[in-house]
Amino acid sequence: MQLKDDERIDLIQKNGFAIIQNKKWFSYGLDAVLLSDFTDLKPQDIVVDLGSGNGIIPLLLSLKNQASKIIGIEKQTSVFEMAEKSIAYNGLEGLIDLYNVDVNHVLDSIPKASVDVVVSNPPYFKKGNALVNNEGIKATARHETTGTIEDFIKMAATLLKEKGELYMVHRPMRLVDIFYYCRLHRLEPKLVQLVSPSLDKAPNIVLLKCVKGGNQELKYFKNLYVYKADRTYTDEIIDIYRQLNIDVFLEEHGYE
Amino acid sequence: MQLKDDERIDLIQKNGFAIIQNKKWFSYGLDAVLLSDFTDLKPQDIVVDLGSGNGIIPLLLSLKNQASKIIGIEKQTSVFEMAEKSIAYNGLEGLIDLYNVDVNHVLDSIPKASVDVVVSNPPYFKKGNALVNNEGIKATARHETTGTIEDFIKMAATLLKEKGELYMVHRPMRLVDIFYYCRLHRLEPKLVQLVSPSLDKAPNIVLLKCVKGGNQELKYFKNLYVYKADRTYTDEIIDIYRQLNIDVFLEEHGYE
Repeated sequence: MQLKDDERIDLIQKNGFAIIQNKKWFSYGLDAVLLSDFTDLKPQDIVVDLGSGNGIIPLLLSLKNQASKIIGIEKQTSVFEMAEKSIAYNGLEGLIDLYNVDVNHVLDSIPKASVDVVVSNPPYFKKGNALVNNEGIKATARHETTGTIEDFIKMAATLLKEKGELYMVHRPMRLVDIFYYCRLHRLEPKLVQLVSPSLDKAPNIVLLKCVKGGNQELKYFKNLYVYKADRTYTDEIIDIYRQLNIDVFLEEHGYE
Repeated sequence: MQLKDDERIDLIQKNGFAIIQNKKWFSYGLDAVLLSDFTDLKPQDIVVDLGSGNGIIPLLLSLKNQASKIIGIEKQTSVFEMAEKSIAYNGLEGLIDLYNVDVNHVLDSIPKASVDVVVSNPPYFKKGNALVNNEGIKATARHETTGTIEDFIKMAATLLKEKGELYMVHRPMRLVDIFYYCRLHRLEPKLVQLVSPSLDKAPNIVLLKCVKGGNQELKYFKNLYVYKADRTYTDEIIDIYRQLNIDVFLEEHGYE
């Protein structure tokens, strides 16, 4: 295993299951854990992760012992190469494939209407948003520098079989865009889970399940809160980590 | 004051401010109170209430001592006549006008782009929905028997001046429809307030503010809960009744 400068191996489970991360870029966070927990998989599912980054979502989904194939799509070569190392490190080459392509060119690698489940943790912020203050790896992961939210939704709709499912994590402030483009591309929103840091805070994470060609019927889960008043994690959050059998210190997963 | 069979005068404030309601139809509820509290009015505003029912929202908005004119639109003649009696009973003929027309024919009475604020508590359920199990006054108030959610949103967009505001109360399960049609008709959603019966329940009321031609930036308030664990009202709900200076017993406003 050859690690580059600034790369390190971070344990996900005490038994050695781990991810290669770069100190200077993102480390995986609560969003990825929540999305993996929220995603329902069946044994024979073909799964695609659009915008896979360092591969954390395929890695976490592999812990569910479901799906026959998980394909990660990542356009940034340096991040893609780090994800490849994580897959090899954990011996998951048989389950997880990675493609180094842009979200708009996935059809060169995967046929239309061939996928059971698409998962995605796409860039949260719009291109040209005031929050874009840097270029490079981190900016591309967080901002729509090339792929827009419509690009992600449209590609998910194209890849999915009829009645196939999209699971997405995003910011509630983008829900108008998300609902609008999902409806436009026949990917009907079915389930919403809003997540707030604490009882006195507005939701800042949304988990969404959509069904391709699904009927128009939206259901909400009760709100999920991350911290109790004493700043320890709520039972619901601890349960989610337990169910995925993740041992890492929760404190390392910055969220506010 | 001539009351029909089944009509009665229900006090809103101890000082005699009241509404005429029909025992067999809807009595006003928490939705109307929450929407009136959520709506921001300025002194010279022209306000239109689309689907005014027994006139509860114009009556509650009059308690804010804002707006120069509030126009209620109600197509069901028997309900409209009851609202007229309430306006007269409270001596509000100078402030509140009522028109007995369908939402799709409002332009016969009010010019395009002439209104500062539209408020609406439209029918919640879709036409053909399994929940439609009766005809008549009550079914029309609750179901889209003629006016659909798109009809309401489109008419709000047509009536409002540029940068004019729509305030709506609805069910979260209809938010895909609402966001989709708002975006389609340039009525950009800006503020969302979700309301749950209690901490362990999913939200079942949504309050929404939209701005005609507004920029694409959605903000969420923290979740509002109606009941504490002991089934008494939360401080936030009691504050809302206090701010509107409403004296009626909260218990009468069925909600779950």
